[in-house]
Amino acid sequence: MISIKLDELATRCGEWLRGQGPQSEIVISSRIRLARNLASFPFIRRCSDSDRVAIDKTFREAIGSVPAWKDLAYYNVAELPQIDRQFLVERQLISRELCEAQGARSVFLDAQETYSLMINEEDHLRMQVMHSGLDLESAWDQISQMDDWLADRVSFAFHNRLGYLTACPTNVGTGMRVSVMLHLPALVITQQIEKVFRSLAKMGLAVRGLYGEGSQAMGDFYQISNQITLGRSEEDLIKQVAEVIPVIIDYENQSRAFLIKESRKDLHDRVSRAFGILCTAQTISSEETLHLLSSVRMGIYLGLIKDLEIPTINKLFIHTQPAHLQKLRGVPLETADRNVERAIYLQDHLRRRDNGGAMGQN
Amino acid sequence: MISIKLDELATRCGEWLRGQGPQSEIVISSRIRLARNLASFPFIRRCSDSDRVAIDKTFREAIGSVPAWKDLAYYNVAELPQIDRQFLVERQLISRELCEAQGARSVFLDAQETYSLMINEEDHLRMQVMHSGLDLESAWDQISQMDDWLADRVSFAFHNRLGYLTACPTNVGTGMRVSVMLHLPALVITQQIEKVFRSLAKMGLAVRGLYGEGSQAMGDFYQISNQITLGRSEEDLIKQVAEVIPVIIDYENQSRAFLIKESRKDLHDRVSRAFGILCTAQTISSEETLHLLSSVRMGIYLGLIKDLEIPTINKLFIHTQPAHLQKLRGVPLETADRNVERAIYLQDHLRRRDNGGAMGQN
Repeated sequence: MISIKLDELATRCGEWLRGQGPQSEIVISSRIRLARNLASFPFIRRCSDSDRVAIDKTFREAIGSVPAWKDLAYYNVAELPQIDRQFLVERQLISRELCEAQGARSVFLDAQETYSLMINEEDHLRMQVMHSGLDLESAWDQISQMDDWLADRVSFAFHNRLGYLTACPTNVGTGMRVSVMLHLPALVITQQIEKVFRSLAKMGLAVRGLYGEGSQAMGDFYQISNQITLGRSEEDLIKQVAEVIPVIIDYENQSRAFLIKESRKDLHDRVSRAFGILCTAQTISSEETLHLLSSVRMGIYLGLIKDLEIPTINKLFIHTQPAHLQKLRGVPLETADRNVERAIYLQDHLRRRDNGGAMGQN
Repeated sequence: MISIKLDELATRCGEWLRGQGPQSEIVISSRIRLARNLASFPFIRRCSDSDRVAIDKTFREAIGSVPAWKDLAYYNVAELPQIDRQFLVERQLISRELCEAQGARSVFLDAQETYSLMINEEDHLRMQVMHSGLDLESAWDQISQMDDWLADRVSFAFHNRLGYLTACPTNVGTGMRVSVMLHLPALVITQQIEKVFRSLAKMGLAVRGLYGEGSQAMGDFYQISNQITLGRSEEDLIKQVAEVIPVIIDYENQSRAFLIKESRKDLHDRVSRAFGILCTAQTISSEETLHLLSSVRMGIYLGLIKDLEIPTINKLFIHTQPAHLQKLRGVPLETADRNVERAIYLQDHLRRRDNGGAMGQN
């Protein structure tokens, strides 16, 4: 077990915005998480402080004994400063719940940031695997293997008829959530998105924002995931999500084609202004930044913006988030100062050096 | 009498946006107009078509016989295409009334565009003198001289007790309107502008938008003028306006200083984004253009935007107006096409050549 310095991670991009993998023009990432609990301890809500310490220790030993996991990074989340916890949330490596919980809790991460194991979140263990693009099958293979390794070492709370037992009844059964993060700007512009969501709800699928449950849709990013975990096999649940994603991709592509055909100039205008504002703002919130980067991202794919690369935009999505910005600047910053630093950071990475003067820089 | 081709005028800037003269940072232009009617004809509203032709002829002969006016340009407004009439309105050389009226009507202009004589507007004759910056005194000297020259040649409708008689009672007396156009962006941002207007109203002064009566305030440009024309001398009326302008200039300067002191970053942000949008929009209305140019104009004076000159901005104020844009492009354009051409024109004049690619041009 080693601990990567978080400040080093900050300069990189993280799996969910690597911008590669199948269908990565629209599908940002594919994620599967499994909720597991130890049979020998009560659920977290009824745990004593010492129970939590014991659970943490149990998993640390189990994980430490898996040969493939000898290089995982370990973070004692309870002892991490708030900014580091927020940093891990922004990278989608820990949940907001783990960030904000009390008591002993920790996380294991691989260097590529494709998976993480959260200890003492809502359940004793939450494992997640995240791949760029549409790649649920290999994510399933990977997390299934991880689950097997741990099942060989600890005893999970399991009921013969129900399946895995979890703190919240909604997770009982497979304990699995399959989610795919999509970038759907054209469906938002053409006001088709609500219709899509209603159809998904009828199919028992949930739609969430960028940072999961309760978070707002920002920058036109949406997570589609299963609601049902009980009474069906993992393969069935994955199949249900996997089958609907190509349909949504198709809708988004049709909307983009429609916009290009029917209002290319307005679309170009929207995308170009978004880029202009990102280049010239002197103070900008993370919400507005996400919103504008979203337009620029689509603009690049549609050929409306040239000389700008998707990886640059993907990096900015994550690097302009509050904790990342502070890590990159190396100092804690209040909201107002962050907004100014964010604007400077955007200018530095979007403007060409030779046009600083003409672009209103002071 | 010569007739300057309007297409040649289009490339120039016109007096009211020359951007020079006293207090030109805030005072755009000073204008005085006199309303006069011939004693031997009824007011316009009661004129026959042949009366109008006769009035036009009377003034043409009178103006043509003034030695200093031998080089004036003459335009038969009734025969000008709509786009040329609108062009002259945009340059503030003719009123919207003269543009939209019916029957024989014309205008004489000097090559510097500092004065014009409109025949068969609301009154038989409307003379105006317009100077850049705050310069009412010399405008008065000039228009007073013009009035004398004409009074030597024609007989104006004049009542010994009331003064000059005019079609609308509000102009009886001096027939004079003294107006000063101000650029007051900081008073608008700090929401002080309504208070200023209420004070002006109490003093019997009127506030109008960029294109006079009934026009909306656009781009933070406001015209302050006298309401009263009767029972006071021309000098008194001018003095009343002339005395209040420095007070408003002072308010505007105080508001700018306040903004710079209290929210420099937000002000810089506003100004810089305005510039960014002007550089990157792919379609833009004339209203939005005025609004954004207004911010940029203030930004240049406050040192928030460098490497950009006031004359460039002043030119864009006028060249991006609908009729100017069509003249400069040499083709008639519908609104949607104008908005696209306007965006291209702005890019051409605001962006440096070497940053086209990075600024989202396609």
